[in-house]
Amino acid sequence: MSEICVVMAKEEYEPWRHVFDAAALPVRYALLEDADTAMIDGVPHDARTLPANVVWMTVQGFRGPLRRTIKHLLENAPDLKWVHSIGAGYDMPILQDVLARGVRLTTSHSNAISISEFAMRSILGRFQQVEERRVARENKEYPRHDFREIYGTTWLIYGAGAIGSNISKRAQAFGVHTIGVRRNPTGTEPFDEMIKPEQVADHLGRADIVIMSLPGNAETANLVDAEFLARMKPGATFVNVARAGLMDEAAVLAALDSGHLDAAILDVHTIEEAWLYRKERMDDSPLWTHPKVDLTPHAAAHGSGRYVRTVDLFIDNLRRFVAGDPRLPDEV
Amino acid sequence: MSEICVVMAKEEYEPWRHVFDAAALPVRYALLEDADTAMIDGVPHDARTLPANVVWMTVQGFRGPLRRTIKHLLENAPDLKWVHSIGAGYDMPILQDVLARGVRLTTSHSNAISISEFAMRSILGRFQQVEERRVARENKEYPRHDFREIYGTTWLIYGAGAIGSNISKRAQAFGVHTIGVRRNPTGTEPFDEMIKPEQVADHLGRADIVIMSLPGNAETANLVDAEFLARMKPGATFVNVARAGLMDEAAVLAALDSGHLDAAILDVHTIEEAWLYRKERMDDSPLWTHPKVDLTPHAAAHGSGRYVRTVDLFIDNLRRFVAGDPRLPDEV
Repeated sequence: MSEICVVMAKEEYEPWRHVFDAAALPVRYALLEDADTAMIDGVPHDARTLPANVVWMTVQGFRGPLRRTIKHLLENAPDLKWVHSIGAGYDMPILQDVLARGVRLTTSHSNAISISEFAMRSILGRFQQVEERRVARENKEYPRHDFREIYGTTWLIYGAGAIGSNISKRAQAFGVHTIGVRRNPTGTEPFDEMIKPEQVADHLGRADIVIMSLPGNAETANLVDAEFLARMKPGATFVNVARAGLMDEAAVLAALDSGHLDAAILDVHTIEEAWLYRKERMDDSPLWTHPKVDLTPHAAAHGSGRYVRTVDLFIDNLRRFVAGDPRLPDEV
Repeated sequence: MSEICVVMAKEEYEPWRHVFDAAALPVRYALLEDADTAMIDGVPHDARTLPANVVWMTVQGFRGPLRRTIKHLLENAPDLKWVHSIGAGYDMPILQDVLARGVRLTTSHSNAISISEFAMRSILGRFQQVEERRVARENKEYPRHDFREIYGTTWLIYGAGAIGSNISKRAQAFGVHTIGVRRNPTGTEPFDEMIKPEQVADHLGRADIVIMSLPGNAETANLVDAEFLARMKPGATFVNVARAGLMDEAAVLAALDSGHLDAAILDVHTIEEAWLYRKERMDDSPLWTHPKVDLTPHAAAHGSGRYVRTVDLFIDNLRRFVAGDPRLPDEV
């Protein structure tokens, strides 16, 4: 087996076999059938001793029965050169360990479209009082209450990468004024204004909506604390589609309960972290029933088109990797 | 009273007094306090014999205690020259009668922004299964089901005026391909493609979403019938934010029940018509509980910003009218 060995879950390969076939790359695909066995060209191999050079890190790598096997390969495969992750973030310990081993890591922005659609839906839904509408319909009532428009509002989007940019482009089409936050702006971000992180405190009071769309790491931990929230405009809405660790969740709840903030749209929070990373339930969390909280379980990235985009992206990256490209797109 | 007499509900004038004051137009405002009395410069007058030259036809003209008085003025005021209506449509009998009397009529597109936000929210909400998410949250479940993206879908928008154009601009920012339908295109419509009404039958099968945003009148009555629906793409979503009369409602329900269509987003329908025009309840309508129907009571135009836009538009028109402009913007 002199060719590059690319490891992935068989389940993730099968639906896209035609796409991999069409790419006709000079690699061997090692397809994990279960925790013990991988198929290479139809022949079973011991999964834990695969000569992995590349691992396509899909959702199977983070959860489910293949997780331990994939983790073992990431930690032990002697000739592992590159891991491509399906997510935009790389704060998870398993990916941090890969980086620490000197293995190349690329992330995937194929989620940006999904997350931006999700954010727009959530914000419009809050402003248009979908819950009140649902109850009115159930009671066969005919209310025609005014709803808040996003037209003419100002949004501060903290993180102006692919996700923040996709949100901004959509919001701008609604007549929203967008302020992007980025440490090192390229000058091509699709925002009405760009500011630096150190300027955020001075601009928070202008924003009707504040959206977190930046990586979660030690530097950004608890970025949204009581002081941050106090600087936000009264009646503003807070949106977190990035990482729970970016915010002091208790402080967010306090800002809602005091009446300072109107709503929080939380796709990431302590409940989902406890569940996704530790399979612990948090049935007593006040988030479940808080009327000012829109709660979803880290689901914003789950748009129907993300897989075909992610496969296209991986194959494009794989082609570059095979060709010896020294720096892949979105390489960390 | 040699100046132009402008009649409107006092309730509609008061919040915008500063705007009318700032405009400083050489007119007298006759402010209807109730069905019998109008105040002109603080002096009460008999509402039914006002020398009305202009009527600002707000929601009070269509509904509520002032309705009959306003109707009386529209039918009898001998020097009535111009009526400005807050809505985009002019199919209502009271406005048709005004036109028949030779009085000038202008309509208002200040609703277009509201309706486009409403349509985008409704479509994204359907695609993202908000009802399933709500139930999951109620049950403290952690589902991360895929949702349909609008990215890459095709929308046929029947009616490419202000409302259809505002929807198209927003949808395009999401990566939607838009097809506009208009009898006499100006060439400046913000759509990816423009077609004529007679071409619609050939293009219906391409659209994942079909949106009605055209006037309701004798010519467009029952435009959406069984044949129209049969030509739609299987699994498509039908959206009506215009007039109930545009569609054969029973045929729409049949197309949903057969499984041909995925969903119908109906802001206009027989229930709202019966209620708004005849104050009749239709509590037995299958629409109330149909799981494939999103039902709202002609509420799409009720965005928070529509009034300030409508006042600005009316004052702008009033300035032109005073100046003797022979053709006002959006004059029917």
